[in-house]
Amino acid sequence: MRVLGVDPGLTRCGVAVVEGSRSPMLLHVSVVRTDADLDTPRRLVTIEAELDALMERWLPDVVAVERVFAQNNLNTVIGTAQAAGTAMMVGARRGIPVAEHTPSEIKAAITGSGRADKAQITTMVTRILSLDAPPRPADAADAAALAICHLWRGATKNRITEAVAARGRQRPDLEARAQEIAERQRRAVSQARAKATASTNARTGIRKPASRGRTTT
Amino acid sequence: MRVLGVDPGLTRCGVAVVEGSRSPMLLHVSVVRTDADLDTPRRLVTIEAELDALMERWLPDVVAVERVFAQNNLNTVIGTAQAAGTAMMVGARRGIPVAEHTPSEIKAAITGSGRADKAQITTMVTRILSLDAPPRPADAADAAALAICHLWRGATKNRITEAVAARGRQRPDLEARAQEIAERQRRAVSQARAKATASTNARTGIRKPASRGRTTT
Repeated sequence: MRVLGVDPGLTRCGVAVVEGSRSPMLLHVSVVRTDADLDTPRRLVTIEAELDALMERWLPDVVAVERVFAQNNLNTVIGTAQAAGTAMMVGARRGIPVAEHTPSEIKAAITGSGRADKAQITTMVTRILSLDAPPRPADAADAAALAICHLWRGATKNRITEAVAARGRQRPDLEARAQEIAERQRRAVSQARAKATASTNARTGIRKPASRGRTTT
Repeated sequence: MRVLGVDPGLTRCGVAVVEGSRSPMLLHVSVVRTDADLDTPRRLVTIEAELDALMERWLPDVVAVERVFAQNNLNTVIGTAQAAGTAMMVGARRGIPVAEHTPSEIKAAITGSGRADKAQITTMVTRILSLDAPPRPADAADAAALAICHLWRGATKNRITEAVAARGRQRPDLEARAQEIAERQRRAVSQARAKATASTNARTGIRKPASRGRTTT
């Protein structure tokens, strides 16, 4: 199973693609940045376009997004929720099941403790993914932790996600419109992709090409 | 000037299209509903598709969205913020300036008091728009109030919005990608439009066809 994890934020969205189960492999890690000088609507358009290009490139089986709580930092929670919503919408529009995990679920899955600190998470992520050094950029480590969390919490929650997605698919009207839009997006992205791929490769350490011959896990 | 107002919500998004200035005219009012049985990602996809179809049909000069505050109802604020974010993103993707107004700005613009109740708002909206009866569905009256608020608060705030949008347009990379996606969206929607138009006409009172020979205000 291939999971694309998104640690949402209006200024920075950490993104990681992880594949496997017991010995997961990091395929991609990057940060989608938006310009603080832009208004929120345009920043969301940037996030939409970049996440869509990443999903087009990596074809994840599941998109995992960190759940945003209303009690989070009041100054940023609305923007963070909107970035998370954009990530979820982009995934669902492509027909990919979308799962949310809470920060404490992620911490517990990775370190065994729901109260682990950032350094512990990064150390464990580096070890789990058999990396020589912590993932860069540093703030994408949380996205990698999220993707691993999804792989490991797996079974039950994935079945629920799939059941919900299947239920959605029983609404042919919505499904048809979503597919139309997704199809247009795919074509839109194919042009932008070459550029995105080049710039992404330049700023991240890729361990494996994007070949989509489903790795057996 | 033609304004499309969106009163955001995950379950119901009120939408109104208002044109003019001193004697604004209601061109369209409806509610975009999503099925509570669907997961949030699929609900956001529905909101995206329906709002995009409405913008394609009504070609507003501005999209006005009610601002969501972190202090709002904790049970629904995240979903409401995500619906608002989707509305803003759909507008920005089409290159339409997007403005946010707070509930008290709306109340003050419509009734003269930032603390007016729902009944007062509805009464004033009905009067301002020279309607024989309050707009139906009732929960779209807030969207009409929002659109009127934008027209009336106008000048200063609109200039700011346009300046911000122009600044975004100075970033040709983002602009190019946004335009690509918007172009694909336009084509996607043209197919879905005939159906959406038919169903929208069925459930709303249209006062004027969608002719886009810019009304002089």
